[in-house]
Amino acid sequence: MPPQTTAIRGTFFDLLDDPWKYVGHEPDAARFIQDGLLVLEGGIIKAFGPFAELSPRFQNVPATHIPNRIIVPGFIDGHIHFPQTRVLGAYGLQLLDWLQTWIFPEELKYADPTYAREAAGRFFDAMLAGGTTTCQAFTTSSPVSTEEFFAEAERRGMRTIAGLTGIDRFAPPEFLNTPEQFYRESKRLIEKYHRKGRHLYAITPRFAVGCTEEMMDMCSRLKREFPDCWVNTHISENPTEVRQAKQYYPQCKDYTEVHEKHGLLGPRFTAGHGVWLSNDEFKRFAKAGASVCFCPLSNLFLGSGLFRIGRATDPEHRVRLSVGSDMGGGNAFSIVRVLEEAYKVGLCNNTMLDGSVNPREMDYPESERNKLNPYRAYYLATLGGANALYLDDVLGNFNVGKEADFVALDWNAGQHAMAWHQSLIAPATGPETMDQAAMLLFGVMACGDDRNVDETWVAGKRVYKKTT
Amino acid sequence: MPPQTTAIRGTFFDLLDDPWKYVGHEPDAARFIQDGLLVLEGGIIKAFGPFAELSPRFQNVPATHIPNRIIVPGFIDGHIHFPQTRVLGAYGLQLLDWLQTWIFPEELKYADPTYAREAAGRFFDAMLAGGTTTCQAFTTSSPVSTEEFFAEAERRGMRTIAGLTGIDRFAPPEFLNTPEQFYRESKRLIEKYHRKGRHLYAITPRFAVGCTEEMMDMCSRLKREFPDCWVNTHISENPTEVRQAKQYYPQCKDYTEVHEKHGLLGPRFTAGHGVWLSNDEFKRFAKAGASVCFCPLSNLFLGSGLFRIGRATDPEHRVRLSVGSDMGGGNAFSIVRVLEEAYKVGLCNNTMLDGSVNPREMDYPESERNKLNPYRAYYLATLGGANALYLDDVLGNFNVGKEADFVALDWNAGQHAMAWHQSLIAPATGPETMDQAAMLLFGVMACGDDRNVDETWVAGKRVYKKTT
Repeated sequence: MPPQTTAIRGTFFDLLDDPWKYVGHEPDAARFIQDGLLVLEGGIIKAFGPFAELSPRFQNVPATHIPNRIIVPGFIDGHIHFPQTRVLGAYGLQLLDWLQTWIFPEELKYADPTYAREAAGRFFDAMLAGGTTTCQAFTTSSPVSTEEFFAEAERRGMRTIAGLTGIDRFAPPEFLNTPEQFYRESKRLIEKYHRKGRHLYAITPRFAVGCTEEMMDMCSRLKREFPDCWVNTHISENPTEVRQAKQYYPQCKDYTEVHEKHGLLGPRFTAGHGVWLSNDEFKRFAKAGASVCFCPLSNLFLGSGLFRIGRATDPEHRVRLSVGSDMGGGNAFSIVRVLEEAYKVGLCNNTMLDGSVNPREMDYPESERNKLNPYRAYYLATLGGANALYLDDVLGNFNVGKEADFVALDWNAGQHAMAWHQSLIAPATGPETMDQAAMLLFGVMACGDDRNVDETWVAGKRVYKKTT
Repeated sequence: MPPQTTAIRGTFFDLLDDPWKYVGHEPDAARFIQDGLLVLEGGIIKAFGPFAELSPRFQNVPATHIPNRIIVPGFIDGHIHFPQTRVLGAYGLQLLDWLQTWIFPEELKYADPTYAREAAGRFFDAMLAGGTTTCQAFTTSSPVSTEEFFAEAERRGMRTIAGLTGIDRFAPPEFLNTPEQFYRESKRLIEKYHRKGRHLYAITPRFAVGCTEEMMDMCSRLKREFPDCWVNTHISENPTEVRQAKQYYPQCKDYTEVHEKHGLLGPRFTAGHGVWLSNDEFKRFAKAGASVCFCPLSNLFLGSGLFRIGRATDPEHRVRLSVGSDMGGGNAFSIVRVLEEAYKVGLCNNTMLDGSVNPREMDYPESERNKLNPYRAYYLATLGGANALYLDDVLGNFNVGKEADFVALDWNAGQHAMAWHQSLIAPATGPETMDQAAMLLFGVMACGDDRNVDETWVAGKRVYKKTT
């Protein structure tokens, strides 16, 4: 039986290119269709355009109308920790102590398949409620958690990237895996999951502080044997961690060189955070085609620092950039909340860059790039994230041939003041122009949260509908 | 007819003293009653204690049972802008440009009583939905907005502080008032509202950048003639503003001296923000009994900077401190969200204070004081705010004789992951110890929002119940 053709009618907004290339004319990077039709077949976008143009061709296709919403591509979370679901927002500590006190004891529970399975259900529920349809996730050092993660992703039909986490120091002994165990189990899991259905596998050294030279060598070996795999890790999150990494890798001139030396820095490599990366490191990331995942909820919650958005997006050495919740270091699953905090980080950077505190720090072009207007913000959450994760051939916007993951946003939902706020921007019936749509979406990221996600669709099927 | 006596039965948590005085044993500053009874008469607390002790004395009093909630004193918002309700979370600019582009044009509408009345309804609805029962508010330069503000506060029965805002430069001409108009209208409004019902009046120079010497002189005169009035203004929010204030007041050695010189710095004086106050200015605030309102949502949203909590709470010169949403510079009405961002500001400060970036900035005691544990956080939102605003004789905790404003918090509400997160802390039936209660409350501030406010009570009456 051939796959059924279906369609969605509604108001659509997506990005076609990187808005940082269009300073002052960002709408040229976007697409807005006030009354559009998205035609789907087997979870793939078969046609997309104005309803008036497409509807004659698809008269017999059953169409679901989603009125009073802005439909955007599904959000992509570039960095999230599946086994931290229950300890998100844990109290009182900065990165290294926070790991020891709260995180490792909880992650240890995920060696139990029953616990991991229950957690996976909750994790995917929470992500879909936040509009996230694809994530790149850390699991634990036990293969059980990776297997339960992929099993649940498959039940939801979601495209995800994950892998066994390697850590052979800086954790309680019962939490560590040896480089040999890591190699053997990673190989088994790659063969079982990579490119099966929508699964993609990431070789996952947790971070240089937690990985010996031998562990990093095993990652190199896996990447050589399975060059098509992704690589996912952390880098330069917190100054104390940076100093500790330097102590562990004294022969490397900086944190990035740890990954260069092991042949990992390149396409499909993502390092979370990068708050303290030097200008030179950003350049080497850009040149290698490696990506950074900016995690502002977490960077503020753990007090790690202010990521230099305007530096990473310098056209001289534009780094591939996704955004991530980094839940549990991040205190919410909601990508809308991630964009809120990302905006704040950009503005906080700019107070330094206008030179009023220190004239030597004045840099207006960098300051301009720090500003997360809605085009830039939603780019990071969709097409930009897909580009950073080398998924833009299949995800990120409504181009024909891509996978049909999307979110219907209710711009009026959320805190009490929201609807009146949004009424300043556009008529109650919805946006009539690209600019109105973009400003409503800014209202969502500035004042909203997961309540603004009304429906989430994965591979052409509705998998979440807000009930309250 | 004598006022009716009623009672509330439930689980209560409040503060009795400043937890910064109890480093390492903060619970000594708090009170937890797992099964308590709060007896009310005419909006005033008549008795409070364990249900088992009090119930024999009040057998005939009808009691409302509020199960599965933690009841805390009503939140106090020390700094909020009534006429910015519709433009909260406006895009793209730092303080001075943001005022000119978004704020002044919107505030101008509040000279129209119909618009101001509708706005007042929405404003108080949104505050109560966030659990705020008392605020100190800015209005506009038109007396209409002050009158509509107090009229609506009276309909809600709320204790509020507000006053006509003086601004005679740095705004479009139609928005300014003259010092003479300001004096005349302020005097009229003080006589009409101050200490009538629950209203309190604040002489309100907007900020030194917007107030000439003549305007400040009128504030001095009003304060001399009505010494019982409050004074409410802004200070040292943003580096460019600080520099501009210095240009306008070249004879003053710093921003604080502008207020000292005009006889305003003292009890019942509040300045919002104070992000860039020097150590010396903090000392002079402390000595004068003047207070600062910390507005982290706004300080991050406008990129103003990181308030030095640990410096303001130095026992050598402890500054009276409230928290404020500063809505619309702050992007939410919710005090729970304010506490979340306050926590983040403290942690971000600490990344500098641990000396890893610059050993000269290492300061462990200050770093310790930056940490907003739940005792400190809920103190700032309740008794601490009352203390800062010189309202602790009537508000801030459940002591007998105080006004009965309180909030019932549902610690499991909010984002999908919340209930499972909280299940790590306490049994589903609720907290059994002070520590459990405090950690559930931390969960609320770390991962929650206005959804955690289930009911809000003002003067012994329920004025808000969450519906969704």
